[in-house]
Amino acid sequence: MYLQKEINEQPGVLARFLAEQNENIEAIAASVREFDPAFVCIAARGTSDNAARYAQYLFGARAGLSVGLSAPSLHTLYGQPPDLSRALVIGISQSGQAEDVRRVLDDANANGGLTISITNDPESPLAQTAKHHIDLLAEEEISIAATKTYTAQLTAIAALVTAYADDDEMRENLLALPDAMEQTLTQITHIAHWAERYRYMNQFVVIGRGYNYATAFEIKLKVKELCYIISDAYSEADFRHGPIAVVGEGFPVMAVAPKGKTLDNMLDLLAELSERGAELLVISNDDRALDSGVKTMRIPDMPEWLSPVVAVVPGQVFAMNQAIVRGYAVDKPRGLSKVTVTQ
Amino acid sequence: MYLQKEINEQPGVLARFLAEQNENIEAIAASVREFDPAFVCIAARGTSDNAARYAQYLFGARAGLSVGLSAPSLHTLYGQPPDLSRALVIGISQSGQAEDVRRVLDDANANGGLTISITNDPESPLAQTAKHHIDLLAEEEISIAATKTYTAQLTAIAALVTAYADDDEMRENLLALPDAMEQTLTQITHIAHWAERYRYMNQFVVIGRGYNYATAFEIKLKVKELCYIISDAYSEADFRHGPIAVVGEGFPVMAVAPKGKTLDNMLDLLAELSERGAELLVISNDDRALDSGVKTMRIPDMPEWLSPVVAVVPGQVFAMNQAIVRGYAVDKPRGLSKVTVTQ
Repeated sequence: MYLQKEINEQPGVLARFLAEQNENIEAIAASVREFDPAFVCIAARGTSDNAARYAQYLFGARAGLSVGLSAPSLHTLYGQPPDLSRALVIGISQSGQAEDVRRVLDDANANGGLTISITNDPESPLAQTAKHHIDLLAEEEISIAATKTYTAQLTAIAALVTAYADDDEMRENLLALPDAMEQTLTQITHIAHWAERYRYMNQFVVIGRGYNYATAFEIKLKVKELCYIISDAYSEADFRHGPIAVVGEGFPVMAVAPKGKTLDNMLDLLAELSERGAELLVISNDDRALDSGVKTMRIPDMPEWLSPVVAVVPGQVFAMNQAIVRGYAVDKPRGLSKVTVTQ
Repeated sequence: MYLQKEINEQPGVLARFLAEQNENIEAIAASVREFDPAFVCIAARGTSDNAARYAQYLFGARAGLSVGLSAPSLHTLYGQPPDLSRALVIGISQSGQAEDVRRVLDDANANGGLTISITNDPESPLAQTAKHHIDLLAEEEISIAATKTYTAQLTAIAALVTAYADDDEMRENLLALPDAMEQTLTQITHIAHWAERYRYMNQFVVIGRGYNYATAFEIKLKVKELCYIISDAYSEADFRHGPIAVVGEGFPVMAVAPKGKTLDNMLDLLAELSERGAELLVISNDDRALDSGVKTMRIPDMPEWLSPVVAVVPGQVFAMNQAIVRGYAVDKPRGLSKVTVTQ
């Protein structure tokens, strides 16, 4: 099973990435500072789109830059690209084959914007189109559900913002990431033992907020890709703003609630969901949050801004185990191909 | 039942809005041209967030401006607002009470950005915070599921971009909107007759692309709010990039596929979904698209950029009828309140 193998490779992938890409990323960050963008625009699809959500919070909070996710069809179907002359434009694609993402960067180059690609293939069209390239160095990912390339993408974004902010404390935090990933993997092996409880679950909601808004979306995507379960992801704020209506007795909700600025809001939500009788599955490093869970997945203590890199891993392992329990093909879910060349 | 009444008020609301807000919007557009923003940032939650998605495509395609959706928690929980000094910042909230949206505009004002609010209450905190205000004039919306305020928000965005682009053909198209809305309502009364078919549907996907990406999200939200069904919305491109794996025999998919630049892609997707045996519910003004549907909801011929204003209406009516068929409280779904003051 490649998926299990690739999930387990994540500590090594992050360690290699941080060691070998550091110099390149510091140089790119210097070039971004010189360009002095008015804003950031990110082009991505699928799993990479969730990496872009993380970038939105991290660039905003630590680099003071407003981030928008691009609407690639403006560049392809509509042929009416917006003005990106003052933008830092980042294209994220595991394979680097996403043609619509490449077109956004192509238009941005022509328009005078500064372009960066983040891919796992330096020879790919996207990598070749961007002015700067960050290579994930994650080695081939064979399983169709992206895992190690996702956490490598988050790490690439974290390293880029760290270098741009020129912040030594952030640099130090980054280096602790491979160990935190290793520790997470050893702490969540119990998921395989209780996965059967959810064999007949046919609805599912994942909640996160702030930096971990991205984590909620990525866990939802893994569960959908691997288990064909219609699920939904929300920020804690949006969820209370309407969709919480779906939650009744026994409704399964996975909450990503690590320590940090968003924890108090997440604890409030967990209390409200408990009152409604929801079945809570909690990913956290906070005892109060974990205490509210029917099932708990502990991650190590770490700064909130880096927590998405490890907080997604229990979700990956949960989705994989659900697929196994249901007898689904783990490495090649039906109807999916690894590389999508969207027009 | 207020919901039915408010859905039926939509032609009148749009006509009044276009007549009475025209002068104000032309003046605001002139002020935007003078400010010359580098990009647009939109702050919104829930239904208003879907109006923001529409704005992303329309500002991009017709005004050449890149649009990002703001991450309000950067302004509230994290206290680290990004640089919005070169941004046009638009806050959208039906009630104007969303405190986090107001904080984004407050920070933008302090930062030198240009702020506009779009609300249904000119006395609300959000309206009072923004430099410019666009009043939806939709009269009180009593039903908790927003309908007339959503289509009025879309019309406000359409009118603002039209005035900014200073395009007379667009101005003429806009004026045809109330009639198109009226015609749509008379063409979809049949939905009530077949709503029972979906009484036990417990999963649901809505697909749109480009301008109607927003429509897919808004229909999904109505179905969730009113019927407590976990559903999902995707762009045609993202859907093929993974989630299509959930679609098997009889799986219900609603497709928003009006004539325009996105139609060919949507037709391809409809063919693929038909092959998979999906149960297709099609909203369109194109005969080929409608032919592929088990159930069809026809909208009038109109320019693609305005189609989201009417294409959402069959979704509103579908969601309302599902709630009726299931015996749910239509005007006050469980667990929801009309005004959310998110921190």
